[in-house]
Amino acid sequence: MNNFKFYSPTYFEFGRETETKAGELVVRFGGKKVLLHYGGGSVVRSGLLARVKKSLEKAGVQYIELGGVVPNPRSGMVYEGIEICRKENVDFILAVGGGSTIDSAKAIAIGVPYEGDFWDFYQGKKIEKALPVATVLTLAATGSEASNSSVITHEKENMKRGTNSDLIRPIFSILNPELTTTLPPYQTACGATDIFAHILERYFTNTKNVEVTDRMCESIMLTIINETPKALANPNDYDARANIMWAGMVAHNDICGVGREQDWATHQLEHELSGLYDVAHGAGLAVMFPAWMKYNMKHDVMRFAQFAVRVFGCQMDFQNPERTAKEGIAKFEQFLLSIGMPIRFKELGAKAEDIPTLVEMLKMDTRSVGSFVKLTKKDAEAIYKLAADVK
Amino acid sequence: MNNFKFYSPTYFEFGRETETKAGELVVRFGGKKVLLHYGGGSVVRSGLLARVKKSLEKAGVQYIELGGVVPNPRSGMVYEGIEICRKENVDFILAVGGGSTIDSAKAIAIGVPYEGDFWDFYQGKKIEKALPVATVLTLAATGSEASNSSVITHEKENMKRGTNSDLIRPIFSILNPELTTTLPPYQTACGATDIFAHILERYFTNTKNVEVTDRMCESIMLTIINETPKALANPNDYDARANIMWAGMVAHNDICGVGREQDWATHQLEHELSGLYDVAHGAGLAVMFPAWMKYNMKHDVMRFAQFAVRVFGCQMDFQNPERTAKEGIAKFEQFLLSIGMPIRFKELGAKAEDIPTLVEMLKMDTRSVGSFVKLTKKDAEAIYKLAADVK
Repeated sequence: MNNFKFYSPTYFEFGRETETKAGELVVRFGGKKVLLHYGGGSVVRSGLLARVKKSLEKAGVQYIELGGVVPNPRSGMVYEGIEICRKENVDFILAVGGGSTIDSAKAIAIGVPYEGDFWDFYQGKKIEKALPVATVLTLAATGSEASNSSVITHEKENMKRGTNSDLIRPIFSILNPELTTTLPPYQTACGATDIFAHILERYFTNTKNVEVTDRMCESIMLTIINETPKALANPNDYDARANIMWAGMVAHNDICGVGREQDWATHQLEHELSGLYDVAHGAGLAVMFPAWMKYNMKHDVMRFAQFAVRVFGCQMDFQNPERTAKEGIAKFEQFLLSIGMPIRFKELGAKAEDIPTLVEMLKMDTRSVGSFVKLTKKDAEAIYKLAADVK
Repeated sequence: MNNFKFYSPTYFEFGRETETKAGELVVRFGGKKVLLHYGGGSVVRSGLLARVKKSLEKAGVQYIELGGVVPNPRSGMVYEGIEICRKENVDFILAVGGGSTIDSAKAIAIGVPYEGDFWDFYQGKKIEKALPVATVLTLAATGSEASNSSVITHEKENMKRGTNSDLIRPIFSILNPELTTTLPPYQTACGATDIFAHILERYFTNTKNVEVTDRMCESIMLTIINETPKALANPNDYDARANIMWAGMVAHNDICGVGREQDWATHQLEHELSGLYDVAHGAGLAVMFPAWMKYNMKHDVMRFAQFAVRVFGCQMDFQNPERTAKEGIAKFEQFLLSIGMPIRFKELGAKAEDIPTLVEMLKMDTRSVGSFVKLTKKDAEAIYKLAADVK
């Protein structure tokens, strides 16, 4: 096991009706003037935003609204948010929404106290300061409610990039599974896929003898496999929603990923996909992960066999572990299909002829992609081709 | 899933040689004058205490020493620590040791800013304030390095009691698995049993549909089953030690126990055992848990079958799940024996004739014992008898 640091100080209020505690929690964690940041119409239509506002008012917390965050959140809204916060002396950001809204809130939080362009932090600059961010989560997916990361798309440069720092871990997060019962099945499945993918990026590692994090990773994947079909069959299944929601947090606050090399190539490959086509991140991952697995399986057949046996209940073929490894990948694809995910370019609306563009967008001359296997441009191209079913 | 709050803000520095960071971390977390609290000779003999002191000195941190904490830590030392801290204006407590030292440090931390007797908090009073506590952990067992709890034995009253509050979660914990390689096998096994027991207290629940925490609980038990024999066969197996150490934290910071009823009867039954005979807590748990399981199995046979199948790899007997449930308990006993644990009163040096005293000590008129099954005095007596092999 590698040496590591782990710090996940977010306070979680989890369960039914917990959004009514937003105001009291903002006060407890020192917020005086809040930027209330959210996305599209659903938080308005569902009445959630009104409940959160009422809670803030009841606690005597001042707030300014900034709505309109879109999936794959954009730099334009971040610049706007930074300006509002400075002008209005906002000292606390409350994101009401899913990962996009939270990521946008995090970007604003680091931009406000920084004199330069917030985009610097998405180009590698170290974060030194941030306003506190808190969340009312409406979608179990990105884990941004607890994670140290944020991903933003720069509109002018058509570039999707991430940043990391413990300073942008939310100070509190309100997780009410009821809020996710109105999600369309496709979004529910995209979220589940994103959670699963956060584990896979940690699971496929070259670090040996990390049983505790291996087993924890497996526990989250087993949960997603068991609970997602229940949430799809009955959107109001509170317990299924609750299991998925907590799994989403655990999958990405890094408690399952400490002390081991992590990969993240598939996320990088996917970011270009959703950057180019503006598809849902989870759907993009469903297309890219099986391809990544097939391409890299031979790097460590026994790890893929472990995945097949422990996660998908395959029988181990002791004479031919590769057969088991392949069966695990096939079962993973079947699972994705069963929950309504695309698994190839075509189903996603992506085009094989764009593969050179995608590889170009990865800018592999300036950064490395992958750790389980460090990918070359040729590798990236081959993986995109597998995802596109191009021979 | 039940509504819950979860807050585990401890900063972890995990890995080789991390104890050298103690001074720098105390400064980072605002400590100016430290009570350096520790137990017996081993931290001195191993040179660990000297390394920690050197680190504090290098960082310019003042400290006062208080050594001599014993297993099943006593109130006398707590009173002494409180007095020293007040006299010397100590503002930070650094525990170097295992769960006993950390629990003693936590008791001092809540006692210093409180005008009354610190024991009030172990009698049910709510904790409102505490000095920050940090740890350098030398034993993977109690999870006190991240937990919100502390257990102290009151010498005059011969009473072992616990208290809980997020205010006594350590502010930082240094976890270096190397420090555990010199432990005698018996202590290693006691620690592993304690970790396993922390999960069992959460695993046996009446809360339905809590797949994510069920699976996480199972991941930690599987880790202990896999890694403990490695650590016993080769005490210097760093990775085995590291897996057990992180498992010990995860088992008791409550991330596996949120949203579900927890039991804790076996800990209560054991506290009287180690209160009366001063045996190792882990050994007492190894004796009490199989007895508790046998007595309560019929309350939920399918949960015990799940434990048998998922944790001990038993074949499910679909026609007779009770047979599977029993097999799981038998395999658990075999595992305990295989790592050198006692599983009956006799091996522990406890006496069947003391059972009435033990039941008396539980003071069941003043508090409830158990949640999976709420135990009566008669139940407690029957469980002690099973542990004592008395028909």
